[in-house]
Order: sequence, then structure tokens, then C-alpha cells
Amino acid sequence: SSVFDPTEHPHRRFNPLINEWVLVSPHRAKRPWQGQVETLEQGQKPAYDESCYLCPGNTRINGEVNDNYTTTFVFNNDFAALKPDTPNAASDDPLFRMQTEQGESRVICFSPDHSKTIPQLSCDEIANVVATWVDQCAELGQQYQWVQVFENKGAMMGCSNPHPHGQIWAQQHLPTLIEKKQSSQQQYFERQQAPLLADYVRRELANQERVVVANDDWVVVVPYWAAWPFETLLLPKFNVARMVDLSESQQSSLADILKQITIRYDNLFNCSFPYSMGWHGAPYDGQEHPEWTLHASFFPPLLRSATVRKFMVGYEMLADIQRDLTAEQAAERLRSVSETHFSETR
Amino acid sequence: SSVFDPTEHPHRRFNPLINEWVLVSPHRAKRPWQGQVETLEQGQKPAYDESCYLCPGNTRINGEVNDNYTTTFVFNNDFAALKPDTPNAASDDPLFRMQTEQGESRVICFSPDHSKTIPQLSCDEIANVVATWVDQCAELGQQYQWVQVFENKGAMMGCSNPHPHGQIWAQQHLPTLIEKKQSSQQQYFERQQAPLLADYVRRELANQERVVVANDDWVVVVPYWAAWPFETLLLPKFNVARMVDLSESQQSSLADILKQITIRYDNLFNCSFPYSMGWHGAPYDGQEHPEWTLHASFFPPLLRSATVRKFMVGYEMLADIQRDLTAEQAAERLRSVSETHFSETR
Ligand SMILES: O=P(O)(O)O[C@H]1O[C@H](CO)[C@@H](O)[C@H](O)[C@H]1O
Ligand SMILES: O=P(O)(O)O[C@H]1O[C@H](CO)[C@@H](O)[C@H](O)[C@H]1O
Repeated sequence: SSVFDPTEHPHRRFNPLINEWVLVSPHRAKRPWQGQVETLEQGQKPAYDESCYLCPGNTRINGEVNDNYTTTFVFNNDFAALKPDTPNAASDDPLFRMQTEQGESRVICFSPDHSKTIPQLSCDEIANVVATWVDQCAELGQQYQWVQVFENKGAMMGCSNPHPHGQIWAQQHLPTLIEKKQSSQQQYFERQQAPLLADYVRRELANQERVVVANDDWVVVVPYWAAWPFETLLLPKFNVARMVDLSESQQSSLADILKQITIRYDNLFNCSFPYSMGWHGAPYDGQEHPEWTLHASFFPPLLRSATVRKFMVGYEMLADIQRDLTAEQAAERLRSVSETHFSETR
Repeated sequence: SSVFDPTEHPHRRFNPLINEWVLVSPHRAKRPWQGQVETLEQGQKPAYDESCYLCPGNTRINGEVNDNYTTTFVFNNDFAALKPDTPNAASDDPLFRMQTEQGESRVICFSPDHSKTIPQLSCDEIANVVATWVDQCAELGQQYQWVQVFENKGAMMGCSNPHPHGQIWAQQHLPTLIEKKQSSQQQYFERQQAPLLADYVRRELANQERVVVANDDWVVVVPYWAAWPFETLLLPKFNVARMVDLSESQQSSLADILKQITIRYDNLFNCSFPYSMGWHGAPYDGQEHPEWTLHASFFPPLLRSATVRKFMVGYEMLADIQRDLTAEQAAERLRSVSETHFSETR
């Protein structure tokens, strides 16, 4: 055992976007699991649920009535974490530093159909979601430096309503993770005269080992530095820094790739695969940002089956993220499942 | 609403140990919860369980037999994430950077009694745990730069065996989080000629607002920048950089404060309170490190009750950590519960 074998030997991999290491311990995958088992959400949901506060025409908790929407529907979060009218205040005390934050938190229903998650929508319906993301970023980017588009899918990911929906939080300051990605992409660009993620896409396409799905415009890989067992990174094959710069045809090829990757996810453990996903691109600060590449990340919690998750706990909270299979093994698993959604092949 | 009120207005607080912001949205605490509800682990456990692989004299999964131990018991993790004999390998490719890691993963049983968690042990019994931590750090610190002492408590925190135990992972390289704490403490020390956390303790003791419990040597606060709802930071009132430098009386006062804080935790929601906890101090690299202060962090997942947790998901994974009550409100809640364990007052 004196020759390094990535599928056998513990090693650390470096995430150049945020300058953090991940400990890879692939031999741990053999460990039997005697801990917490999750409950599967089962059974077909109705297309309309009168008790759902996201279905068309229903009344929400604060008394507002939803539109009778037919494509997507956006409204202000009834318990918004960010608000536009917060007074200004700040402290620069090195041990007690703070600043108030202005912003908005919105909810976006993906479709009127209570029962259909993204992999079950048509490409045209997913393209409506993409167009809504673009519109929201265009509108909120006028007023706020940062617009965070994301989706928490599944109860395991803190989602409190099964009606397919995502969120959009906009704010004045750049969040911590964006500051990190900003500065590492900037540094790389200064050294290499090319965007970090554009170089990375080229290398991954040449190698193919970590590629899960691709079309003419987009590719999904399990990044070399993936933290979550089946984490993926969705990248453009062309240069683009922000959601709002996507052409109509790039938006529809994006809908196609979103359908492809989410079908693979559902097919991995034959369940509605939980995840958090979201978009990162150049901030809306009036600068050009040639160092930035628009990208989406999927962070799914499952490890072994539909009911056994990865826990990011003690060592992960205190030291480094630790994972139990390699990125290459995860990509292989996702490539090997059917490209047709399991619900259609029963 | 033009005057800033921290219990009303969204604001960001800065964690100077790791240079990360936390979004505080205290008005969100009013939000009703319709999402995932956890299962309570209930019922009194037996003092000895013949099917438990951590109880004295029992056979483990790999055929080894546990000592008939009477205080604490340490053994190598049967599915160790780190191993001493990993071959050396590394790559400096900026996009595919890696290095192998040598190390050890050990398990430490806190007591032979299957049924008793830390708050239910006597101070003498907890002092045995502390002494074992000290011994392990002394031994592993000879060979490895970093020794991570931690405990995952409760199924919710990925703990797969209810027998009270913790873990010790030792490794050659400094983990990401330690690198961050190292550099921020170093920078602060260069500017202020005092350890960051020593200055911080002084300020918290003067203010008292975030102090939960204290004794002559130690104090527990909800740090100003807490991420988890009831996160706490355990700090010494004296100068100490490493676990191995604690005197015998400092070890027994540490046992006392550990019992105090874990009793408060259990009493908050009348349950065996889940958490991950662990220790950070100066690395074992032969340097003096006057900038470092030894400290422990508790990261508990619960937010509203014994069965409703905080989810660190979409926005938290992609932007900033977000919390639903202020650090001061959390400290007040923890101060207001009884100092006697609920199981003794029934
Ligand atoms: O080592 P254990 O108890 O089997 O595993 C637990 O702690 C580890 C270290 O924090 C985590 O990586 C695992 O996800 C968790 O289930
Ligand atoms: O906004 P929701 O859906 O009520 O809440 C969910 O998403 C938020 C943003 O990621 C998280 O802070 C919450 O913990 C989670 O339950």
C-alpha cells in the first residue's frame, strides 16, 4: 500500500473557490450505519391541496390571497428574514462588530401544480422558472448588490411546504461566501488572465471523470472538492457572469439541464431527492467582473439511501468537512442511473 | 422604527475568530413551524446493554473485546477516517490541489454506565473524562500537529450509539477552521498585544448580558456572533493555550462548569439536549502561541422545542448563516432554567 490510491487512502482536496480543504476518507463507506434513519415522504400528492398556502387562489397565513396563477408566482415572504425599511446602524468594535441590513425575502412558486417538482415539469415549464429568476434578479439587482436565488427541497432540508417553490433573498452587503468566491476568482484572474471556473470547465470536459450530464451550453460535474456526498456544480460552457445576461436559448438549454440533473437525483435512490440549490454570479455593483462565472450548486444531504443521510457534525463543524466516497465515485453513480424519471417507468 | 433595536431589526454580526458574518433576524422567531418534526429519544436506558458495542466487556463489530473498564475507555475507531500508515502524495495544481493525510481516529467512552450523559455524571466522573482528554492530547500531540477532541451527542447529531462517548481525531495538517482561528488570533495579537479571547472574556464578564454560567476559573457565554440558536463558548478566565497545560484544579473546575452548562441545556426543553461540542487550542507544533486561548464550543441544533430544530440550509449554505433570535435572548433563556437536572426534580 505504498502507492497512493484515492479510493483507498485518506486525503484532503482543496476548494479553490473558497480556500477550504475537504477530508476524503473513502474506506469509511464500508462502515455499517446504526444511527438516525429519516422518514420517507411517500404517496402521490394531489395537483391542488386546499390547505396549502402556496396553491393558486388559497389564503396565506397573513390573510393575503394568492393569484390564480398558471405559470410561476412570486410574493414577499410572510416571515421575511430581510426587510427594506431597517434603520442604519453599525459598530466597528473589533470584538463586537455589527451592521444593520436592508433587503427583501421573496417566495417563488414553480408551478400551480402542488404535486410536481422540477424533474416532473416540462422543459417549457422549467424555462418559466428560469425566466422568473432572470426577471427577479434584474429587478432586485437595481436596488441591492446581492440577489440570492435558492431552493430548499424536502423536509430534510428545512422546507416547510411540499408545494414546489424556491426563494429569493436580496440584500445590500455581500454575504460571507460571496466575498470569498469574489476574492479567489479575482486572484486567479490576475494570475492566469482567465476566469477560474472557465478554466475548470475546460479541464473537466477534457477529463470526463466527474461529468454527470451535459448539453450544448451547460455541464454538471461532481466538483473535485465536493463536500456533500452527491454535491454537483452546474456550469456554463460559455462566458457569462450573471443570470440576467443569459440569452433566451441559453435559458431554455438551462431548463433542459436542470431537468436532466434532477431526474438523475430522483433516480439515485428512487425518491424525491432532497437538496438545497442556489445560484452565484457577479454582484450587481455596476462593475464588469470578468473574473466571475455564473454557476449553481446542488447540496443534497443523502449518503447511502433515501433514508440515511450524511451528518456534517463534530469534526466537520470544528475542523474540516469530511466525506465518505470520492467525487469520481459519486459522479459514476449518478451517470449510471436512468435518464428517464422512475415514476414514468413503473 | 428609526432607532435600531437588535431584537426587532435584521442585522449582521461579525465572528472575529473566523472572519465570517451571521445574519440575525429576531422577528423571524414569530414564524409558525409546519416543517419536519424530530422524534424524541425517550425512556430510561439500562446501565448496561448487552447489545451495545461500547459497554464494558462487550465485543465490537470487528471482534475486539472491550476492557472491563470502570472510568473512561479509549480505543481506535473501527472505521477510522484517519490512519497512520497512509502513503505520501500531493498535487499543487491550482484547480486540483490535494495532499494525503496521516492521522488517528479514536473513540472515548465517558463512563461504563450506558445510561448516563455528562450532566448526569458526578464532577469526579467528569474530571476523569477531562483527564483522559489531557492524556490523549499529550500522547497524540507528540506525533501530530492537530488533535481534535469532540463529542457528537444525540441521533440528531449523527451519533450512532447512545452510550455516552466522544471522539479524538489527530492529524498532520491543520484543519481549515484552525488555520482561520490561528491567523485571526495572530493578527489581533500583533495589533493589540493581547490574546483576542482574553480580551473578549474580560468584556463579557464586565457586561454579563451573554453570560450563562461561571465559576472561579471558567465562564460560558452565548457568543455575540453565535450561529446556532443556543450555541455557547466555554472560556478560561486565566491564560492557557492548550488542554495539556491545565492544572489539576483547573481540570476539576472545568468538570464543574461542564456539568453546569449541560444541565442547563437538558433543562431548556426537558430532554437529553443534542449537540456537537469540541475543543480548540494552540497546535502541537513546538511553538509558544501566546495569541491562542484554549476554548470549547457547543453547537446544539434545537431551536423551538425538543423536536423542532434549526436548519442550516439554502441561504445558510450559499450566503451567510442566519439565526432567528439574538445571542442575548438565548443567554437569557439558558440563565432562566433550573440549575438542577430535570430528572432529579420529578
Ligand atoms: O464517527 P461516527 O460517530 O461514526 O460518525 C459521526 O461523526 C463523524 C465526525 O463528526 C461524521 O463524519 C459522521 O457523519 C457522523 O455520523
Ligand atoms: O424560509 P423558510 O422556508 O421558512 O425556512 C427555511 O429556509 C431558510 C433559508 O435557507 C432557513 O433559514 C430556515 O432554517 C429553513 O427552515
